[in-house]
Amino acid sequence: MIDLLIKKIKETGNPTVVGLDPTLVMIPNYLKKEMFEKYGKTPKAVAEMFVEFNRLIIDATWDLIPAVKPQIAMYEKFGLDGLDAYIRTCEYARSKGLVVIGDIKRGDIGSTAEAYAGHIDGCDIEGEHFDLWKEDYITINPYLGVDGIEPFLKVLRKDEKGIFVLVRTSNPSSGELQDKMMEDTYMYNQVADLVSKWGEDTIGEYGYSKVGAVVGATHPIQGVELRKRMPHTFFLVPGYGAQGGKGADLKGFFDENGLGCIINSSRGIIAAYKKDALIEDVENVGPEFAEASRRAVIAMKEDLQNAF
Amino acid sequence: MIDLLIKKIKETGNPTVVGLDPTLVMIPNYLKKEMFEKYGKTPKAVAEMFVEFNRLIIDATWDLIPAVKPQIAMYEKFGLDGLDAYIRTCEYARSKGLVVIGDIKRGDIGSTAEAYAGHIDGCDIEGEHFDLWKEDYITINPYLGVDGIEPFLKVLRKDEKGIFVLVRTSNPSSGELQDKMMEDTYMYNQVADLVSKWGEDTIGEYGYSKVGAVVGATHPIQGVELRKRMPHTFFLVPGYGAQGGKGADLKGFFDENGLGCIINSSRGIIAAYKKDALIEDVENVGPEFAEASRRAVIAMKEDLQNAF
Repeated sequence: MIDLLIKKIKETGNPTVVGLDPTLVMIPNYLKKEMFEKYGKTPKAVAEMFVEFNRLIIDATWDLIPAVKPQIAMYEKFGLDGLDAYIRTCEYARSKGLVVIGDIKRGDIGSTAEAYAGHIDGCDIEGEHFDLWKEDYITINPYLGVDGIEPFLKVLRKDEKGIFVLVRTSNPSSGELQDKMMEDTYMYNQVADLVSKWGEDTIGEYGYSKVGAVVGATHPIQGVELRKRMPHTFFLVPGYGAQGGKGADLKGFFDENGLGCIINSSRGIIAAYKKDALIEDVENVGPEFAEASRRAVIAMKEDLQNAF
Repeated sequence: MIDLLIKKIKETGNPTVVGLDPTLVMIPNYLKKEMFEKYGKTPKAVAEMFVEFNRLIIDATWDLIPAVKPQIAMYEKFGLDGLDAYIRTCEYARSKGLVVIGDIKRGDIGSTAEAYAGHIDGCDIEGEHFDLWKEDYITINPYLGVDGIEPFLKVLRKDEKGIFVLVRTSNPSSGELQDKMMEDTYMYNQVADLVSKWGEDTIGEYGYSKVGAVVGATHPIQGVELRKRMPHTFFLVPGYGAQGGKGADLKGFFDENGLGCIINSSRGIIAAYKKDALIEDVENVGPEFAEASRRAVIAMKEDLQNAF
């Protein structure tokens, strides 16, 4: 999957991943109205809004981007209906040829991680196989060490799938543990070394492993250091845009071929219509709200290209 | 919720939590057959098995125990049907007066953690409130620092809910990060100090906070040290039984009143019928398999009492 992701980044000339993380306040009024009328004020109504909202954004951007990253929490909040919307979103993105990065940040002991591996491995029921979650990549939490990683590595060794392990997250308090000195270096470096090791037997044709790392755009200096420390590890970079990261900060996250990372933007793209000069009436915007997402993707692509 | 949990531990005289973590191989043949006939070899069939399996175990043990802890991964593996079984299990356990500890180990940046807080806070849709996940407690991963904890603390300050934060997990590779020296002490101690601090404004009538800690039974010496280090933090202790922890090892996890922790056993209780002397024919056992779970709970209660 890392090779396919890189191929798609080269094709589109764009290392942007669109974070499909909808919230109720982002949904345009026309769509809210339609679904509340159809399904009442219920989780089902919200789920249908999310599916349609995402579908319009995917339709407006799929030819410009290599991947999408739905954040499962936004859907999980709305229970089974929400998760149904998550799966339908993943499925629709795949049908448009996009790589789907499920931002699920799971992490547990071995026997439990084996169950979570079902996200990318599906499940077998007496010889019948089911691919229920429709994800190509997932994000993983490293706090439990290799036991919690091994079940995913087992999948990566046999299938075209991938994981991104949290190394240096983008949030303000991420340093509380990750920046502390652990033995002779920062904790995130210790995690980086583990992640490099975990990935070393799944390196593909472009020199990158199926085991990637999450490295926040909000830490540009650490990003450069980690790029050098983990030359075979592809980065998923959250924190661009709404969280404060800018294209100019990100140069060092890339390798000398302009590869090596994929930059996520969520709110900045999916809620772009709220701040778009060409959307005249935000309150009464129709499905054309998604055109603002297309413009935001193009602007982000240019911002990233200018960084070089 | 910590006060209710402690009250129930006192009432039952039993600090045991039953881990409802079913797998297909644990399901008795009669039940497999019934559900496969009804629903085919499908996730729906597995979900219905899990619901019935759990129901029988809850019916056989509810009067002896304060709480159950379903591990969401075991259900999530089977997609939406599996998660439906998870929620129905939580709901049924609650209907029997049990405290429900959802073992979900979520952890993310602030805005995302806010969505995950829906597990214990429900969701609001234009003034309508929905409690979709039916959990009282959930487990949380601390890797992202306080941003990822604050949305849960906000719920704990207003509602009778609780969280257990991973401090020292029970799995063999848990030491890869948690046992490393971080500044002047082990990493798990640094996390312990954060967890104590996060909980300090939610301490209840028994002197324990609504912010608990996960401390594995497989680390008895560290358990004693952590008990002293975090006097107001209740422990959820996994790793008893199948993972190797014994009652005699656990004395130090308790305070001088015999409180301070709740010990989880999953496989040892829910799959007890496979090793129970009174179950004559494991292959053809009927619903009476659950009686073995009752006997296992009683044996565990005695093992824990003998520890004192």
